[in-house]
Amino acid sequence: MSQRVLTGITTTGTLHLGNYAGAIRPAVLASQAPGVESFFFMADFHALIKCDEPDRIARSSRSIAATWVAAGLDTDRVTLYRQSDIPEIPELTWLLTCVTAKGQMNRAHAYKAAVDAAVAAGEEPDANVTMGLFSYPVLMAADILMFNAHKVPVGKDQVQHIEMARDVAQRFNHLFGRGQALFTLPEAVTDAEMELLPGLDGRKMSKSYDNVIPLFDGGPKALQDAVARIVTDSKLPGEPKDPDGQTLVALYDAFASVDERAAFRAALRAGLGWGEAKQQLVALIESQIGPMRARYEALMANPAELEAILQAGAAKARAIAVPFLKTLREAVGLRPYTQTATTAVAKAEKVALPVFKQYREADGKFYFKLLSADGALLLQSQAFEQGREAGQWVARLKQGGAAALTTDAPVQREAAEADIAAALAAFQADAA
Amino acid sequence: MSQRVLTGITTTGTLHLGNYAGAIRPAVLASQAPGVESFFFMADFHALIKCDEPDRIARSSRSIAATWVAAGLDTDRVTLYRQSDIPEIPELTWLLTCVTAKGQMNRAHAYKAAVDAAVAAGEEPDANVTMGLFSYPVLMAADILMFNAHKVPVGKDQVQHIEMARDVAQRFNHLFGRGQALFTLPEAVTDAEMELLPGLDGRKMSKSYDNVIPLFDGGPKALQDAVARIVTDSKLPGEPKDPDGQTLVALYDAFASVDERAAFRAALRAGLGWGEAKQQLVALIESQIGPMRARYEALMANPAELEAILQAGAAKARAIAVPFLKTLREAVGLRPYTQTATTAVAKAEKVALPVFKQYREADGKFYFKLLSADGALLLQSQAFEQGREAGQWVARLKQGGAAALTTDAPVQREAAEADIAAALAAFQADAA
Repeated sequence: MSQRVLTGITTTGTLHLGNYAGAIRPAVLASQAPGVESFFFMADFHALIKCDEPDRIARSSRSIAATWVAAGLDTDRVTLYRQSDIPEIPELTWLLTCVTAKGQMNRAHAYKAAVDAAVAAGEEPDANVTMGLFSYPVLMAADILMFNAHKVPVGKDQVQHIEMARDVAQRFNHLFGRGQALFTLPEAVTDAEMELLPGLDGRKMSKSYDNVIPLFDGGPKALQDAVARIVTDSKLPGEPKDPDGQTLVALYDAFASVDERAAFRAALRAGLGWGEAKQQLVALIESQIGPMRARYEALMANPAELEAILQAGAAKARAIAVPFLKTLREAVGLRPYTQTATTAVAKAEKVALPVFKQYREADGKFYFKLLSADGALLLQSQAFEQGREAGQWVARLKQGGAAALTTDAPVQREAAEADIAAALAAFQADAA
Repeated sequence: MSQRVLTGITTTGTLHLGNYAGAIRPAVLASQAPGVESFFFMADFHALIKCDEPDRIARSSRSIAATWVAAGLDTDRVTLYRQSDIPEIPELTWLLTCVTAKGQMNRAHAYKAAVDAAVAAGEEPDANVTMGLFSYPVLMAADILMFNAHKVPVGKDQVQHIEMARDVAQRFNHLFGRGQALFTLPEAVTDAEMELLPGLDGRKMSKSYDNVIPLFDGGPKALQDAVARIVTDSKLPGEPKDPDGQTLVALYDAFASVDERAAFRAALRAGLGWGEAKQQLVALIESQIGPMRARYEALMANPAELEAILQAGAAKARAIAVPFLKTLREAVGLRPYTQTATTAVAKAEKVALPVFKQYREADGKFYFKLLSADGALLLQSQAFEQGREAGQWVARLKQGGAAALTTDAPVQREAAEADIAAALAAFQADAA
C-alpha cells in the first residue's frame, strides 16, 4: 500500500536558498519515490493566525506556490492545493475541536512560549494569544487526518503537534469508529540530516540574521551580489586554502556532486582565489536554479496558469475529502433526516419510490421524466441528441437531489417545487 | 430596512409543553411580524460539543425540526436550515478564531462554570473542558455574523456570547473592513416577560425536575396523564376555589384568551371540580396542539418531506452565505492568484482574453466554441436545440472555470487540459 506523505507549506514571506536546499529540494525528491503519495498544501488558513495584512497573505501564497512548482513538483503526480480551497478542512476542524481536550492545548509549546513572553513582560499570560494561535494544533490535525496521511515531515518543534493529531485521531476513532479506525494515526518524520545551509556570515541561513542568499528574487545579479558578500579568510590567490569550515565550501557542497566537491576542495588547496571560487559557486547554483527561475517568472507572469494548477489540485484533494467527510459526518450523527430511521424502511418499501423513466420518441431524440411514487408527472426533460446525456442527467439528479436541479437543468418542472424536491430526496435516502 | 432576527435551536433531547409556550410559540409569532426577516437553524454543530451519541444527535435534530415546522414556522417566509448544511459557517469560524482574543474566552460564563466545578471536585481546572466548550462562543459568533443578524433573542445566560460576537465583529471590521463595516453588530434581545410555564409540581417546567408535560410525544393520552398529575389543593367539587397561585390555572392561562381565562376563574370560584377543570385544560391544549401533532407525526413518518424543507432552507441560507464569505475571504487575503496582481493588468489587456464564440450551423442547431487569445481551438460544443442552452453553458464555464467543466459537459476538449483550464481561469480573473 502506498504511503501518504503530507507537507504543509507556510505562506508568509518569500523563500531563500536555504529554504530550497533544506526543505523544497528534499521534499520534491521524496515525492518522486515509488510507493509515495504526496500531498502539499499552501497553509493559508494558518497564515491568517499571524498575519493581518491581506495583500501580503495573497502575494506570499502566490509566490510560494510558484516557487514549489518551479522547483520541480510534479503536480500530475502529487496533490498540490491551497488549504483554503478545501472547505472540508474547517468543517473537520470543528468535529475535532469537539473531541480535543483543552488541557492538551494548554501544553502546546507555541502557546506556552507566548505566555512566558507575556509574563516576562509583566503582562497578562494570555495578553498576546489569539484563539487562532491557541487552536492551531486542531487545524493542523484536520489538515493531516483529512487525508489520512501516514507520514508528516516536520521540524522538531512540530513533533508535539503530530502527537496531538494522533491523540485526537485516537479519541475520535474510539468515540465514533464503532470498532473501526476512521483515521490513520500519523507519524512525524524528522530528518536528523536535514541540510541546513549556512548564511553569508556562517550562521544558519535565516531572514532574522539578514544573511540569506535569495532564491529567485532579483535574478542572477542578486545571487552574485549575495555570494560576493560571503565571509572568507583573507588568503590571497595562489595561497593554499583550507576548505574545512568555510561557508563558501559548505554552500558549494550543497549543490555539487561528490566529484565536484573533491575537485573544488583540491583547487582551493592548490591556491584557487576566493573571488574565482565565488564565481564557480555562482555558476554552479545558477546552473540548477536558473531554469527554475525562468519557470518561476513565467508562472508569476501568468497567474491564470498557476491558478489552474492549484484548482486542479483542489479538485484532486476534494475527491478524497468530500466523501471522507461524509463518512465522518455520519459517524458523529450529522445525517440527512432521510437516513436516521428510514434506512431499513426505505429499503423495504422500494416499490413506493418515485421513478425516472428514460425513453426515445419518434423524433429519434432521447428524453426522461420523473414520476412520483403514485405516478404523477414531476419533471419532463428536454430532448437530448444522445441517450448518454439523458442518462447522465438522471444520475446527477438521483445523486445530487434538489441541489442538482439548477435553473439551467434541461427539464420542465411539472409539479410544486417541494414535491419535486421530496421525490429527489427519496432517491438519496434510498442510496444512503 | 428589514430587521434580521436569528434563532439557534439546540438539537438535543425532545421538547415539552414549556418549550412550546416559552420559546417556540413566541418565536413563530415574532417571525410573522412585518419588516422581520427570520433565520432559524438547527444548531447541530453545537450539539456535538455536549453529545457523543451519534444516533441521538441525528434523532433529536429530526424530531426538533419537525416540531418547529409543525408548530407553524412558515418556511416559505423564514429561513430554516441545519447549521451543518452550511459549510461556510465552520470556515467563517476559523476566520473569526484568528481575530478572537483568548482572554475573552477565558471569561466566558459556561467555561468558568466548568472550571469551578472541576476545582470544587478537586480536579485540574480544565479536566472536563473540551476545545468545543471553550471555543463555542466563536462558532456562535460565526452563526450570527454569517447572516449579519441585527437581533438575537436569547436567554440571559447567553447575553455575554452576543457581546463577544459584537467584539469579534468590531475587531474584524477594524482590521479588514478598510473603513467599511463588513459585519453588522448584533444585539441580544432578552424578553423579560418570556412565559415560563410551571411544571406539574408548580416549579418551572424542566426535564431536570421530572415535572414536564410532553408536547407531542405519546399523543393525547400522555397529555391527559400528565395533566392528571398536576398538584392542586384538596378542595372537593362544589367547594369554591381560589384560582390564584394554582399551577393548573397558570397552565390554562398560557393557552386561553382573556375571556376564557376569566370564565375559568369564575367557574373555579363557583365550585368547578379539579377533575373537571383538568379535563377543560386538556381540551384547551389539545385544541391547539392536536393539529400540530398531526402535522408533526406526518413529518416524522415522511422524512423525505422534512429533508426537502431543510434542503430548501439551506439553499436560501447559502444564497447569502456563499457570496458573503467570498467577500470576507478576499478581505483577509484568501484570493485566487489571478486576482492579486492582475486585476489592473487583465482589465488593461482585455484584447488578449480567450473568447467564446456562439453560432448556428446549417443544420439549424446551436453551437459554441472556446478559442484561446491567439485563436487556437480549445473547446467545441455539441449541438443544442436551443440557443439559450448553449448560452447557459457558456455562462457557466465563464463563471465556474475549470470546475464547471464536468465530465458530462456537452463539449469536446480540443487542447491540453491545462490550456483549457488556464483560459477558463482568465475569464474568472477578468470578472474579479
